[in-house]
Formats: sequence, structure tokens, C-alpha cells
Amino acid sequence: MNFINKLSAAWTANNSLLCVGLDPDLAKLPRDLQGQPDGIFTFCSRIIDATADLVCAFKPQIAYFGALAAEDQLEKICRYVRDNYPHIPLILDAKRGDIGATATQYAREAFERYGADAVTVNPYMGEDSIDPYLAWQDRGVIILCRTSNPGGSDLQFLNAGGVPLYQHVARLVADKWNKNGQCALVVGATFPEELAQVRAIVGDMPLLVPGIGAQGGDIAATVGAGQTANGMGMMISSSRAIIYAQPQADEDFADAARRVAIDTRDAINRHRAS
Amino acid sequence: MNFINKLSAAWTANNSLLCVGLDPDLAKLPRDLQGQPDGIFTFCSRIIDATADLVCAFKPQIAYFGALAAEDQLEKICRYVRDNYPHIPLILDAKRGDIGATATQYAREAFERYGADAVTVNPYMGEDSIDPYLAWQDRGVIILCRTSNPGGSDLQFLNAGGVPLYQHVARLVADKWNKNGQCALVVGATFPEELAQVRAIVGDMPLLVPGIGAQGGDIAATVGAGQTANGMGMMISSSRAIIYAQPQADEDFADAARRVAIDTRDAINRHRAS
Repeated sequence: MNFINKLSAAWTANNSLLCVGLDPDLAKLPRDLQGQPDGIFTFCSRIIDATADLVCAFKPQIAYFGALAAEDQLEKICRYVRDNYPHIPLILDAKRGDIGATATQYAREAFERYGADAVTVNPYMGEDSIDPYLAWQDRGVIILCRTSNPGGSDLQFLNAGGVPLYQHVARLVADKWNKNGQCALVVGATFPEELAQVRAIVGDMPLLVPGIGAQGGDIAATVGAGQTANGMGMMISSSRAIIYAQPQADEDFADAARRVAIDTRDAINRHRAS
Repeated sequence: MNFINKLSAAWTANNSLLCVGLDPDLAKLPRDLQGQPDGIFTFCSRIIDATADLVCAFKPQIAYFGALAAEDQLEKICRYVRDNYPHIPLILDAKRGDIGATATQYAREAFERYGADAVTVNPYMGEDSIDPYLAWQDRGVIILCRTSNPGGSDLQFLNAGGVPLYQHVARLVADKWNKNGQCALVVGATFPEELAQVRAIVGDMPLLVPGIGAQGGDIAATVGAGQTANGMGMMISSSRAIIYAQPQADEDFADAARRVAIDTRDAINRHRAS
């Protein structure tokens, strides 16, 4: 089953548009896990177990593993998802951007080494920086379009031939780069009007939407702007607000993550078309 | 000594603008090294020894190590350069692009784990995706501007407020992002007129220039367009043409790399202002 179909199935099976981001900052792990050699894996696998029935995808952020020389633990986490929750799409958040032979190496890293169903990539280097990933026809390529940070406007909001650059990127992907129906876009939740613009351009293409939770995006506006006619079409990503949820009295960190994930999934679902 | 000063010193000490890129594709290594557990390190360290007096920088490409789960060998290669050639700048080619806490993780990976003097980054996410790197004030941040691949034009050549996007990026970096004088730009050798445009915008800012050698950029035109008034200002990068140079009769792979590196350095120097 390819990425887009696997994602659709997960939306339906779990009745959820929530994507849990795995950004394991060592300083924020529970103290008893900080000193363990496999502490990051233990932390993430417990979050995964606690939320797997609530999500449409898991999204580990590779930067956190690279900084800690913990690629072996990322491999274990990816294998854990594939072995235990094979119906849940696994997105490697890596925002890769390079060309030709180098892009092929990044695709191998994401799709073969880590076995990810999809990887995030950067459009700045153009179509031949995206093409190498498309050779893995059952995988997804999620292209940065409109990012949720303030500086996102520096380039993405420039007027490029009459439309903001991010809309030009959305059109390029929808009309040209998405040759085999493998593509999705990253569009931040902090700009709901722009999310609606992208949705109007790309039809039913899936959108990965970071920016709710710690970054402050409004859930009602986000869902209203980004969903497809049948209430699907989005992977709404939350990382820190869920994985570092503040435990209540006698509550375990994974139970706290589950509680916040339920709240977030439900808040999203209240605004979905049915 | 900070990156820009270290680079200037290397230009002068070795009388060279040549940067050797280390892209160790396992299938292209000498056969006796392919099966060795440290084969990639051995290969790269011999290339380094054979060319260290000919270059202004070494530039390992992290994608090749990621695809092979060989980050440990990249660590060893970086340590080898720092220990044996501490006057030669080490550039991690990673083309990172992410924001806030995530960008900080990438900066830690590049500057602390690998001890790189500089890292390549992508401008698409804007100023706050560059800022975290600037906290390491002695390191360099080399920002993609005009890349050497055909698809580079898809975004970089769009008209953005009257100038092509790549020129807008050059202006942003020169006028705003280069707060502490740590920045450089990537500008491909395949477009000499555009290299000249960038040089006119950014003054003496260093330019990392890939695209000669295997990618076909013309050396005379590249040097003419990109050098500063005193014949400096560029790191002209060549990877495959040097590290996979075809050995002649009885010649070792490292000797072949040295021969081609000498030829390339000399071809560059013939066109430099003095």
C-alpha cells in the first residue's frame, strides 16, 4: 500500500487527523530515562504505545537524533513503529534539499535505512531535487510550502509572478512535480487564510500542518481552512505539547501524553466536516 | 580564529581557491576498501593527506554517510582534519533548513558533534531558520543562493519584486542576516553571469561554488565572475572529478586525486587577479 492510501486508511481507522511529532530533547526527558543508553528509544516507544490508537501518523524529527549521535535509537524507533503499528504512517521529518546523486542518498537514508513511509523535503533547489525521491513509488514526499515560523514570510510571501511564492510552490507541486500522486505539502497552522489558499490550489492533496500546540495555531480555524470536503486531508502535527505534557498527580509521562493527545484529537474532530 | 579568517588564511597559505568535496559512494571506492569496516574513513583520510596542501577547504557531504549508517566514520574524518590539518576549514555540506529548537539541534550536530567550521543551510524558511547557527560566533553559515542544477531555476529565477529570487536572497543575507560577518553563499559555477551579479551584491563575502568538474562549469568564466578584486573570495568545489579520478598506469587512487587537484588548482590560479 502506498503512503497516500496508508494515510487515508489511518485517518479512517483511528478517526483522527492528529500526527504526533517525536522530538526527543534529552534535557526534557523524565529524569530516570536521561542516563539510560536507550533512554530516547524507551521514551519514544512509550509515547508511541500510548497514542497509536489516536493518530494518523508518527513523525520523528531527525535533528534531535543527529545532535545526540543517536541514529541507532532512531532506527529502533522506526522499526518499533513498523513492527507494532504497521498501519500507522511513519514520516521522517528531515527537510532535505539536495540534487541528483546526493538526493538519492537522502532518499536511501529515509526510505531504506529508517524505513519511513514519507520524508519532508525543501523545494528551493527545484524539481530535480524532488525527482530522486519519486523513484520509491510507494513512499510519500512532503514538500515545504508555507512554514509556521515568523521568518517563513521572508521568502515564501514574496510576490513571484503575481502570487506569493508559497502559492507558486503549491501550483508547481500540484501541476508538475506530483507525477505519481506521491506528494503532500507542509503548510503551517499559524496562517489559516493561507492554508485555505493552498487547499484551493491542490485539491485533495494531503497537508502536513505543524503549528498548533506550542506554536499557538488555532485548531478551529486550522481545521476549517485545511480540511477536504469529506473532513480529511490533513496531518495536524503536535510535538512538544503532547510528548512533554505536564503529568498530573500520580500520572506517568506516557499517560499525560495520551490525555493531551485525546484532547487534541477531539478538539480537531469537533471542527471536521462529516 | 573564526571561519572567515581561517578561510582567508588558507587561501593565502596554500595559494588555492580549491575546495575538495568528500562524497564517498561505496560503489566507487577501490575494491579493497569496499569490504573494510573503516573503508570510507581510510579512503577519505588518504584523499585528505594527498590534497591538504592544495586546498582552501574540505567539504564532506553528510548524505553519503547517512545513507550508509556511517556517521561514526564521518566523525573520524572530521577529527582527522582537525587534528592533522587544523589550518584547513572543514565545511559540513548538509543544506539544513529548519527553525528554532530544531535548527539549534542541527547546529549542535554540525559544530559540536562533527566540529565543522561551517555548515551549508537552506534559506526557504527565512531568517529565524538561520539565526540559531549564528550563536556559534566563530563558525560559518553558508546559505544556498543560486544552485548549479537545472531545477535551480524553478524557484531561484522567479521574479521576486523586480529581481530574481536568488538575488533577493543575496541581498537579504548581505543586508540583514549576516549580523556578525559569519555568512557565505552557495552560487553554482554553471551560471557565470549570475555569479557576477551575486558578487556585485555581496561585496567580499565568500562564495562556495560547486559545479565545475563533473557538472561542467567553465573554470575561466567562473573565476572571472566570482573572484574579489584581490583574486580571493571563492571556495571552488570539486568532488567526484577529484576523489574518483581515474588512476593512470601504476598510480594509486590518492595519487590520481592529487594529480587532478593540482591541475584544478592551477587552472583556477591561471585566471585569478593577482
